[in-house]
Amino acid sequence: MSYGEDRIYKKVEVIGVSKRGIEAAIQAAVSKAHRTLEKLSWFEVQDIRGHVADDGTVSEYQVVLKVAFQLKE
Amino acid sequence: MSYGEDRIYKKVEVIGVSKRGIEAAIQAAVSKAHRTLEKLSWFEVQDIRGHVADDGTVSEYQVVLKVAFQLKE
Amino acid sequence: MSYGEDRIYKKVEVIGVSKRGIEAAIQAAVSKAHRTLEKLSWFEVQDIRGHVADDGTVSEYQVVLKVAFQLKE
Amino acid sequence: MSYGEDRIYKKVEVIGVSKRGIEAAIQAAVSKAHRTLEKLSWFEVQDIRGHVADDGTVSEYQVVLKVAFQLKE
Amino acid sequence: MSYGEDRIYKKVEVIGVSKRGIEAAIQAAVSKAHRTLEKLSWFEVQDIRGHVADDGTVSEYQVVLKVAFQLKE
Amino acid sequence: MSYGEDRIYKKVEVIGVSKRGIEAAIQAAVSKAHRTLEKLSWFEVQDIRGHVADDGTVSEYQVVLKVAFQLKE
Amino acid sequence: MSYGEDRIYKKVEVIGVSKRGIEAAIQAAVSKAHRTLEKLSWFEVQDIRGHVADDGTVSEYQVVLKVAFQLKE
Amino acid sequence: MSYGEDRIYKKVEVIGVSKRGIEAAIQAAVSKAHRTLEKLSWFEVQDIRGHVADDGTVSEYQVVLKVAFQLKE
Amino acid sequence: MSYGEDRIYKKVEVIGVSKRGIEAAIQAAVSKAHRTLEKLSWFEVQDIRGHVADDGTVSEYQVVLKVAFQLKE
Amino acid sequence: MSYGEDRIYKKVEVIGVSKRGIEAAIQAAVSKAHRTLEKLSWFEVQDIRGHVADDGTVSEYQVVLKVAFQLKE
Amino acid sequence: MSYGEDRIYKKVEVIGVSKRGIEAAIQAAVSKAHRTLEKLSWFEVQDIRGHVADDGTVSEYQVVLKVAFQLKE
Amino acid sequence: MSYGEDRIYKKVEVIGVSKRGIEAAIQAAVSKAHRTLEKLSWFEVQDIRGHVADDGTVSEYQVVLKVAFQLKE
Repeated sequence: MSYGEDRIYKKVEVIGVSKRGIEAAIQAAVSKAHRTLEKLSWFEVQDIRGHVADDGTVSEYQVVLKVAFQLKE
Repeated sequence: MSYGEDRIYKKVEVIGVSKRGIEAAIQAAVSKAHRTLEKLSWFEVQDIRGHVADDGTVSEYQVVLKVAFQLKE
Repeated sequence: MSYGEDRIYKKVEVIGVSKRGIEAAIQAAVSKAHRTLEKLSWFEVQDIRGHVADDGTVSEYQVVLKVAFQLKE
Repeated sequence: MSYGEDRIYKKVEVIGVSKRGIEAAIQAAVSKAHRTLEKLSWFEVQDIRGHVADDGTVSEYQVVLKVAFQLKE
Repeated sequence: MSYGEDRIYKKVEVIGVSKRGIEAAIQAAVSKAHRTLEKLSWFEVQDIRGHVADDGTVSEYQVVLKVAFQLKE
Repeated sequence: MSYGEDRIYKKVEVIGVSKRGIEAAIQAAVSKAHRTLEKLSWFEVQDIRGHVADDGTVSEYQVVLKVAFQLKE
Repeated sequence: MSYGEDRIYKKVEVIGVSKRGIEAAIQAAVSKAHRTLEKLSWFEVQDIRGHVADDGTVSEYQVVLKVAFQLKE
Repeated sequence: MSYGEDRIYKKVEVIGVSKRGIEAAIQAAVSKAHRTLEKLSWFEVQDIRGHVADDGTVSEYQVVLKVAFQLKE
Repeated sequence: MSYGEDRIYKKVEVIGVSKRGIEAAIQAAVSKAHRTLEKLSWFEVQDIRGHVADDGTVSEYQVVLKVAFQLKE
Repeated sequence: MSYGEDRIYKKVEVIGVSKRGIEAAIQAAVSKAHRTLEKLSWFEVQDIRGHVADDGTVSEYQVVLKVAFQLKE
Repeated sequence: MSYGEDRIYKKVEVIGVSKRGIEAAIQAAVSKAHRTLEKLSWFEVQDIRGHVADDGTVSEYQVVLKVAFQLKE
Repeated sequence: MSYGEDRIYKKVEVIGVSKRGIEAAIQAAVSKAHRTLEKLSWFEVQDIRGHVADDGTVSEYQVVLKVAFQLKE
């Protein structure tokens, strides 16, 4: 890719979930999207949420993110 | 599904249209998405709009919503 | 299509890139989406960005837009 | 009207109020606007609010919406 | 109450859930808040969401709203 | 007016300007709107801006606000 | 007009439509508003949208903008 | 309090009302919250609104604000 | 809890502070809220801020979040 | 300056603090920016916050604003 | 530059003004920023506004944009 | 510094980049800003983004943040 050439990207919204933290939830979502979509270029975090277990600990982080990838011509 | 397990959801933006009201427009969009996507989990209303007929009655409600479903590993 | 009939639209987020200006970037994204998705109905601009070359000229416009198309029953 | 012709629309912000529900409040606002403005084309809901009576029931729904109509040349 | 007198209101964020529709979910939240808080004055809808059952029907509406009530001196 | 009766309000966006401060700019806009529109009910501040004179003093406050009034049946 | 004098502006929301591009749609809306409203001072773009023809070309640009003009005392 | 120690704050949303101006409405809300909640630390203005009397004067300012206070361990 | 039953949740806004990172600040706020409120269900991050020490290191992370819990009937 | 000539402005974000009220905090920020930056043209209020003293009085107003000034060619 | 290396960018907010259109206003702002700041990488459009001449023509476009450039170590 | 004294802060927008995670990207931006600007007081995260490598791993986190520092009189 070089700047100035016409090209198209698509953005898809996914939610990664992990109990190990925010970066782990992002990586989980990016890895999954990487396998099913075309090659990813970047991601943008939209929202950070999570679930709380009965004992008051954060049982998982849920990160809503958009992942972007270039569409082939 | 149980909390704490790594998993991924995807969100897709659809617009349901119905003359019977807002809930009917939501249900129309959810039913259609349910048939073509994987099993849906939840929806989030983004916008409520509508068309007005020549006699000044609301001829249809257009509800923009995001529907979310879990991606299989 | 006539107003008052139940129907469903889907919106997809794409980024068009062109060095020739904002309208060209929009048209590039719309043309590409038209070939790969079902027939498009409308678009909505979300963001306008761009890259700057080493000599300080705008080397390309990047227009983030949502494109919408009717889902077939 | 056909797409591609130059034309102008105007949007006006109104609030419809009804005790019978959200769609009734929308229809009330649209009907009133239809009589005093030029022919309406569509509406967009901005906010949904309401008043609570002393016994804890919702005594009315207040729906803020924008209504749009084409200006004659 | 008359306008022009100093007074204070408080707003609390609640989520009403009902399978019967949006107005029912609002009324459920307002009724509950009315019993546990001081007398409510109004509500403002923040978000409309919902859950989808396995057969693709909307199994419940979840309406996030702010309810407001006057604080006693 | 009593709650529970169907009725319609309209909102209009105006900008009041005054060198005497924010409340004075609001009052200026409200007074002017009161004379030309139907009887006003309330206002909502949208933006507060201002102009700076050559000596670095604020020469005027510009307050963008929406004013609302009930439409007669 | 000179800064520091009390004065009032009004803003009105219009949508200009043109197949020739974004600037043409803005100019169309401004020209029309100029003829029917009092003398305009400035405009602010709110949204850029458009319609797509059956062959995948952008058949028109729809620019939502606010136009502002000074109210006479 | 010193920076770097774990601690928790809570934010509560209140509306102060006063006919004497915006700062007076803020102070009214802060004073009331100070008496009923734990010791306040800061406030953030969310919205400025007001009521207009029959003669076109602003009869009261209504300032929506969030007040924050540290929770005791 | 099962979907489709009427029930009510409340959301409260808290700020967790920790020098150990963003997840630690979230867990601190969730733990504290868990002890003083009814059983928490989930959290939503609103803002991430922090304080900078004199030597240019981040001395603490301040995470504004909403925590939600089900109200008992 | 006359409209229609190419020119460039820059906006800078500052926070003015004063115990005397919102306008005083704005003027403080504008005066300081006027001395260190080039000649200011206008300001835009972004946020209004403040600190509360131990006795429940507002000890200072903190106004976040953007100030704009023309860059010399 | 290669991805994965620690580095820092700064964003500055400027307003480009041109009577020739939106792209010309963007290029004007980018060119000016390029001369006075370090080498620019990209821009993001924040707002599009403009001035209207007495004859109802758009006399200039004012584009508010953020320009970003890498800070040298 | 003590509350109640007139003083001025400035906010600057920077982007920190690090492959080690979100906190590392924040600390990188804060450290760099600390060396080139006056002494920082706090930061506010605006956006979290990142780049994805060819093998689907997050190759770097890009955190957009505003850093604030007090201007000397």
